[in-house]
Amino acid sequence: MPAELMLETDAYSLLRSADIDVPKHRLAKNCTEAVEASKITGFPLVIKISSSDIAHKSDVGGVVTDICDEKELIFEYNSLLMRVKEQAPDAHINGVVVAEQISAGTEVFIGGTFDPSFGKVISFGTGGTLVELWKDVSFRLTPLNENKIKSMIEETKISAVLHGFRGTAPLNMDALIKIIKNLSKLFEENDSIISFDINPVVLSTERAVCVDARFITDINSKKKERILPAKPLHADVFKPKSIAVAGASPVAGKVGYFVMQNLLEFKGEVFPVNPGREEIFGMRAFKKVSDIKKSTGKTPDWLIVAVPAVAVLGVIEDAGEAGVKFAVIISAGFKETGEKGAKLEEEIIKTAKKYNMRIAGPNCLGVMIPDMNLNATFGPALPKPGPVGFISQSGAIISAVADRDITGNVGLSAIISVGNQSDLSFSDYMHALAEDGKTKAVVLYIEELVSGRRFLEDVQKIIHKIPVAAIKSGRSKKGSAAARSHTGSLAGSWEVYKEAFKTAGIVTAPSITRAFQTAGLLASEGWPKGNRAVVVTSAGGFAVLSADYAEDNNIELIELDNCLKSELNAVLPFGWSGNNPIDMVGDAGDKRYAQTLDILIRHQDKWDIAFIAAAPVTSIDPVRLSKEIVRFSKQTEKMVVGCLIGGDSIKPGLKILNESNVPNFSELSDAFSATGDCIKAAREAGFFSNEDI
Amino acid sequence: MPAELMLETDAYSLLRSADIDVPKHRLAKNCTEAVEASKITGFPLVIKISSSDIAHKSDVGGVVTDICDEKELIFEYNSLLMRVKEQAPDAHINGVVVAEQISAGTEVFIGGTFDPSFGKVISFGTGGTLVELWKDVSFRLTPLNENKIKSMIEETKISAVLHGFRGTAPLNMDALIKIIKNLSKLFEENDSIISFDINPVVLSTERAVCVDARFITDINSKKKERILPAKPLHADVFKPKSIAVAGASPVAGKVGYFVMQNLLEFKGEVFPVNPGREEIFGMRAFKKVSDIKKSTGKTPDWLIVAVPAVAVLGVIEDAGEAGVKFAVIISAGFKETGEKGAKLEEEIIKTAKKYNMRIAGPNCLGVMIPDMNLNATFGPALPKPGPVGFISQSGAIISAVADRDITGNVGLSAIISVGNQSDLSFSDYMHALAEDGKTKAVVLYIEELVSGRRFLEDVQKIIHKIPVAAIKSGRSKKGSAAARSHTGSLAGSWEVYKEAFKTAGIVTAPSITRAFQTAGLLASEGWPKGNRAVVVTSAGGFAVLSADYAEDNNIELIELDNCLKSELNAVLPFGWSGNNPIDMVGDAGDKRYAQTLDILIRHQDKWDIAFIAAAPVTSIDPVRLSKEIVRFSKQTEKMVVGCLIGGDSIKPGLKILNESNVPNFSELSDAFSATGDCIKAAREAGFFSNEDI
Repeated sequence: MPAELMLETDAYSLLRSADIDVPKHRLAKNCTEAVEASKITGFPLVIKISSSDIAHKSDVGGVVTDICDEKELIFEYNSLLMRVKEQAPDAHINGVVVAEQISAGTEVFIGGTFDPSFGKVISFGTGGTLVELWKDVSFRLTPLNENKIKSMIEETKISAVLHGFRGTAPLNMDALIKIIKNLSKLFEENDSIISFDINPVVLSTERAVCVDARFITDINSKKKERILPAKPLHADVFKPKSIAVAGASPVAGKVGYFVMQNLLEFKGEVFPVNPGREEIFGMRAFKKVSDIKKSTGKTPDWLIVAVPAVAVLGVIEDAGEAGVKFAVIISAGFKETGEKGAKLEEEIIKTAKKYNMRIAGPNCLGVMIPDMNLNATFGPALPKPGPVGFISQSGAIISAVADRDITGNVGLSAIISVGNQSDLSFSDYMHALAEDGKTKAVVLYIEELVSGRRFLEDVQKIIHKIPVAAIKSGRSKKGSAAARSHTGSLAGSWEVYKEAFKTAGIVTAPSITRAFQTAGLLASEGWPKGNRAVVVTSAGGFAVLSADYAEDNNIELIELDNCLKSELNAVLPFGWSGNNPIDMVGDAGDKRYAQTLDILIRHQDKWDIAFIAAAPVTSIDPVRLSKEIVRFSKQTEKMVVGCLIGGDSIKPGLKILNESNVPNFSELSDAFSATGDCIKAAREAGFFSNEDI
Repeated sequence: MPAELMLETDAYSLLRSADIDVPKHRLAKNCTEAVEASKITGFPLVIKISSSDIAHKSDVGGVVTDICDEKELIFEYNSLLMRVKEQAPDAHINGVVVAEQISAGTEVFIGGTFDPSFGKVISFGTGGTLVELWKDVSFRLTPLNENKIKSMIEETKISAVLHGFRGTAPLNMDALIKIIKNLSKLFEENDSIISFDINPVVLSTERAVCVDARFITDINSKKKERILPAKPLHADVFKPKSIAVAGASPVAGKVGYFVMQNLLEFKGEVFPVNPGREEIFGMRAFKKVSDIKKSTGKTPDWLIVAVPAVAVLGVIEDAGEAGVKFAVIISAGFKETGEKGAKLEEEIIKTAKKYNMRIAGPNCLGVMIPDMNLNATFGPALPKPGPVGFISQSGAIISAVADRDITGNVGLSAIISVGNQSDLSFSDYMHALAEDGKTKAVVLYIEELVSGRRFLEDVQKIIHKIPVAAIKSGRSKKGSAAARSHTGSLAGSWEVYKEAFKTAGIVTAPSITRAFQTAGLLASEGWPKGNRAVVVTSAGGFAVLSADYAEDNNIELIELDNCLKSELNAVLPFGWSGNNPIDMVGDAGDKRYAQTLDILIRHQDKWDIAFIAAAPVTSIDPVRLSKEIVRFSKQTEKMVVGCLIGGDSIKPGLKILNESNVPNFSELSDAFSATGDCIKAAREAGFFSNEDI
């Protein structure tokens, strides 16, 4: 048995050694020793069976509480042993733990687990027997500092009780924080501990005591290798001047055919490579990549590989020899097919490393750089260029995204299909995009991160500059099974991903559409500076819905102060809402919008986000209104969110907003959700420096 | 003081009279009586101060528990009185309640409140001091029957504990159900009870006892009048042949101008009415509505009123006299402006009743019947005709919806702006649409229901035939304030609306877009028959996301049985997912889709819903795939949900789906959410008759 449950007395000793409070206790081998022990623990006391073979002591009648005197102790000691021997006759019994009974307090739990992507994780929440019922739990990746511990505690519902709930006295938070800190350190420093579960930790106004402790250990568990940060990928890698295509083909339907066809628009040089052809798509074909240099004296900046899996290693060796530094391996048939493929993949990467060649893929769709007319994929047409980069673990989703509709009006700076991520992974691509001078936000579609820790470190370096919105799939049990069947990844626990994203400031998006909405918003407006919002509208229904959606998304609709109110009273007709949402009454034209926006420009210190919501009504000219919104956006330093909601009749207005990079949402609920997601991410990652949380 | 807190002893008596178990107790006026009382209650016992002036007994030290003998009782009795007199010197003290102490059990609560739209509501959930912390609560409208009570209990988390949690014995559910039933009856039959709160009800394996009981009463509270069902509105009212327009105007910018302009397309007769004009839009104008009959012998089927508020009463009187039976009062300036307007509104309705004339509005945008080219509004152009009716409490939202984008490809049968609902309201319009022969689903935008109970009864009559998706706004505090400022409604509590919608089977939609998506889905597919789903795709990413979204929305992805698996193995290549989601591998063409769909047609008894998800990839011809999906939909009796996701390149496919009424979603998450919402509504309303819940 590699993993093993630690005896409770050992667990107690371990905890004590980490300066963590546990009940006074002794292991008694017989009744006399138990009585002896009671002199140390005092009454009332608890007795529990001690056996590595018994995981759930209560189930075999192995726990008795509330023992008040020696006579009772002797009686209960004997009957406990009898019950256990009857119910678990084969268990090896170490003895009986006699322990101090910790008088009533609030029960919390502290746990530690090992996540395949992110490593050691600490959890905290409502403890006791109803843990699974309340599911009141928060997580943090190790290492923890005091701030992280405090915020972890604050996230749970039970924290309200810890602070003193409805007149009860506050409990000893310092003791709790100390326990969590020491446990986290203990977990970090002991690689033989696979997981632990302290439940309950009993918290009173005086102390915090770990009453029940379960440690699972494995002495064979090795210290995880520290993954060294790879050499960062330079942005120039995405500005190739020449591209070789191994496996280029004139035969319609072949991958190498589609790649060549897509590259026809590329303004740089393209070198088809195919040992059996002289010419492909009217271009001279080369037998090997190394022949290109021999014939032309040029080394291609990129190599696209679209040959059968078995031929890839040879191509890479030859190209590496020839000095090629970047290859996109589209070919499939590697890790995703099993062990043999995985071995081949390893060989390829080893070979590439030898020549300092970086590899995208294998088993990927390719790479697109829209503003260079560079489509190095076997898939879809290029999307509109723009400020959002998209890095995806699914080729089909790239196809859907490149085909436009889903991205709305958001243009793309680069689309990268990561494939098996055997060399380059999300972090590398993000690093390069952050430096390319055109990417202002990034969308990630993630099924699995190869090294979650490194990813986080890398994201944290760039996220202030380029915000990141991520869709994490494979969250559900069936979803992670589906991910395995399709990429050979083991999708990690969603809870841990969520926590990791939060730490880094990544906006977690619930859908592809929303991810691009959010990225578009952030690319044009940057991070919001806070959550104080105003809504300006002439549509009563939108005012009502806005207030609901603001509340749903923790967006604060500011109360208008007297100064604002009196300025608004001066320009708005009788019957305006008198507060925020500022409903200017149904017959408002663009002039009334302009007057209200002018007031908000003057008072822009009072808000962080403005939503301008209008329906296509006869009194509003969408073009003039859009121009007012653009002016408003230019004259404020804040996040301005257009919500012109309608269809055909407002299109000329939308065009104006789009040309001036003012984001617009065609569904009010999306506008508030996307904004709320940004606020949440910014707040949780601590970007709102002036806020007391 | 109109509302008053009932003394606990009275509350206990009231409960006992309703055959509800309470602790044994006595009111003691002095120490001797307290000792006397203890002979009835036994020890341990509890003492509590009795005073109508003290709402929170614990806060003034007015409760002592765990009193174990007479000596302790005497001591604690005296010190309790001293404390209370010191802390609440002005309170009138009735005495001290001496009560049996109910030994530990699970604490739940039962509450009763009065909702302005729906009347009496019962709540149930986790009780004790942490009620506000856990917010584990469910609601039901009275009257309750045993099934409703059981499902109310099941909805809470604490129900798991009641059934026996992790090996504990199940508690006495029958006793709990009986208490809730009797309390509900008590509440229903006593109109002087405004609200009550029994917390805790202590539940053990033996009994269920109401330990603390707070009743708020008001003897002046009158029995609510039973609202008599109005005469149902006949569908023919929406098939007018002639329309008079009071306030018709040739002056651009006036409401009566826009109405006339919009009516130009109408194929029936239009009679402009304006005392100061001979001719409007080239049509003969009449001085009064009654002149139309005098001059032409015809009585218009509809009257649109767009005159100033003060002139409306005269117009209605005249038109009523002339035999007009249906009027749409667009004019504003009534209830929404205050008391004077409300009075005028009442007068108008009284007058209309005299002539059996039904009134839409006032203060509304008007009515549209797209397939009749009938646009009787002062607003937007007509949308595309189709199977979905839209009844809205916001004119601006109608403008946005009629302008298309939001509705996607869903066409509309009728758009009705309800305005102040002074005569006709949501129920009436729904009833008429249900009978019009073309409406297959309805979307409601609701800020407030005038009579929630009548609405529910009416909805329940038609919802099997025409499903209803509703957006309820004014859910938040600020939202309901915004609703008040704009329509003069008092938006009721969201929790109660949610529960009411659930009872009736209304799908609650979180946004306008989603409401139309859901209505479109239901209009073409009808209610799903269950929640067993299959996903067919060739996009690995969609397979992974589908599994996540299915889990998020409680949609069951069936396990493929061996029979299905072996049939699929026969047609799908090595490397297909081997389970559901059925990922047929990235190179699947429409033929492989067809083969898989054929298998699912043969096995359609095993599933209720099929999602067909495809990206725009080179191997798929969207037109051919769409034709296969249409065939699949025709050859199955189940819900078929298209998820062709992409942009320009799939449009020809979408056209085919749309023409054949197969719903399609351009965002996978929306497809699952909308379907999940339908399943949830159908299940909660009990439409899945074959399911054990």
